[in-house]
Amino acid sequence: MADRGKLIILSGPSGVGKSTVVAKTMELRDDLCFSVSVTTRPPRPGEVDGKDYFFISSEQFDRMVENNELLEHASYVQNSYGTPRSFVEDRLEKGFNVILDIEVQGARQVFEKVPDAVSVFVLPPSMQVLEQRLSARGTETEQTIAARLTRARQEIQEADFYQYMIVNDIIDNAAAELNAVITAAHCRFNKSRVLELTK
Amino acid sequence: MADRGKLIILSGPSGVGKSTVVAKTMELRDDLCFSVSVTTRPPRPGEVDGKDYFFISSEQFDRMVENNELLEHASYVQNSYGTPRSFVEDRLEKGFNVILDIEVQGARQVFEKVPDAVSVFVLPPSMQVLEQRLSARGTETEQTIAARLTRARQEIQEADFYQYMIVNDIIDNAAAELNAVITAAHCRFNKSRVLELTK
Repeated sequence: MADRGKLIILSGPSGVGKSTVVAKTMELRDDLCFSVSVTTRPPRPGEVDGKDYFFISSEQFDRMVENNELLEHASYVQNSYGTPRSFVEDRLEKGFNVILDIEVQGARQVFEKVPDAVSVFVLPPSMQVLEQRLSARGTETEQTIAARLTRARQEIQEADFYQYMIVNDIIDNAAAELNAVITAAHCRFNKSRVLELTK
Repeated sequence: MADRGKLIILSGPSGVGKSTVVAKTMELRDDLCFSVSVTTRPPRPGEVDGKDYFFISSEQFDRMVENNELLEHASYVQNSYGTPRSFVEDRLEKGFNVILDIEVQGARQVFEKVPDAVSVFVLPPSMQVLEQRLSARGTETEQTIAARLTRARQEIQEADFYQYMIVNDIIDNAAAELNAVITAAHCRFNKSRVLELTK
């Protein structure tokens, strides 16, 4: 793996199947990995530090923010989450294409810091299908599903700066498309590499 | 084929293997076709009107230029060549991705008229390899080869507005990359299609 990897910002509403698309795409290429986030929340049973998350203290988190060590970060009621720049940088340097599964606001932050990142928004074939998928999980109340759908509409409307969109209708097609988008990103025109040829 | 096709501008120095890359890519997908140019030069033995070229008179050519019916055109010592807009439009409308194999100057004209075109520059792995490929044809004098190499350097230096570059080192890789670039082009973010979803 000689080439430096690409940072891939992947967003899309809850229930659209982002992780399934990525898992399927990983079967198509072996140079793909997920970014591991830092979080201040305590690990849940079974979660492994450095694999699911890097579990850190609030003080450590604040220091990372101050030192500009996070590509993006967000805080919820009690907990904070962020994408550590050094982890991502290390994987890119090794030739891995690194996937960030983040929300639209975080994506905007990353895109400003990493202008050559590839941004992909995953869409459901329709809002009806998204509702069906959320219901099919069987883990959520009608109220939660309604709230998720409202949030999904909002997110989709805010998603106006992405470069690519993938409709997750047939999973194999969606994975083939993500795969193509990554390959195409490695073919982006690079003036200095071109000029080197003529030296 | 529901989706409208994409116009693909393909350039690269003589001898780099553009037609081989396209032929190989056509094995990977059946929605790809070449644009057929108009020319004022007489047909050579074996050339078929409407397949190799549309053979037209100088008067017809001039009228097409006047009526803005050519996406690009160029005149050489005796003969003129051009890309008929109606042919391209018809194929795109039918869902075909239409390949224009044209020089950098023509590409610039097309790109101004069709801003959502996909532009790809095909490069040799090195100038040495390009020279070897030109020599291997066995049809050209040392002088012609030297002239072609000079022209190649020029073209490569002028090619500063392309979106993608593909190095034709291993033909299967180059075809896979062109294939990915076309698939990715169909995934470009389309705000209005996204907003339709949330209606």
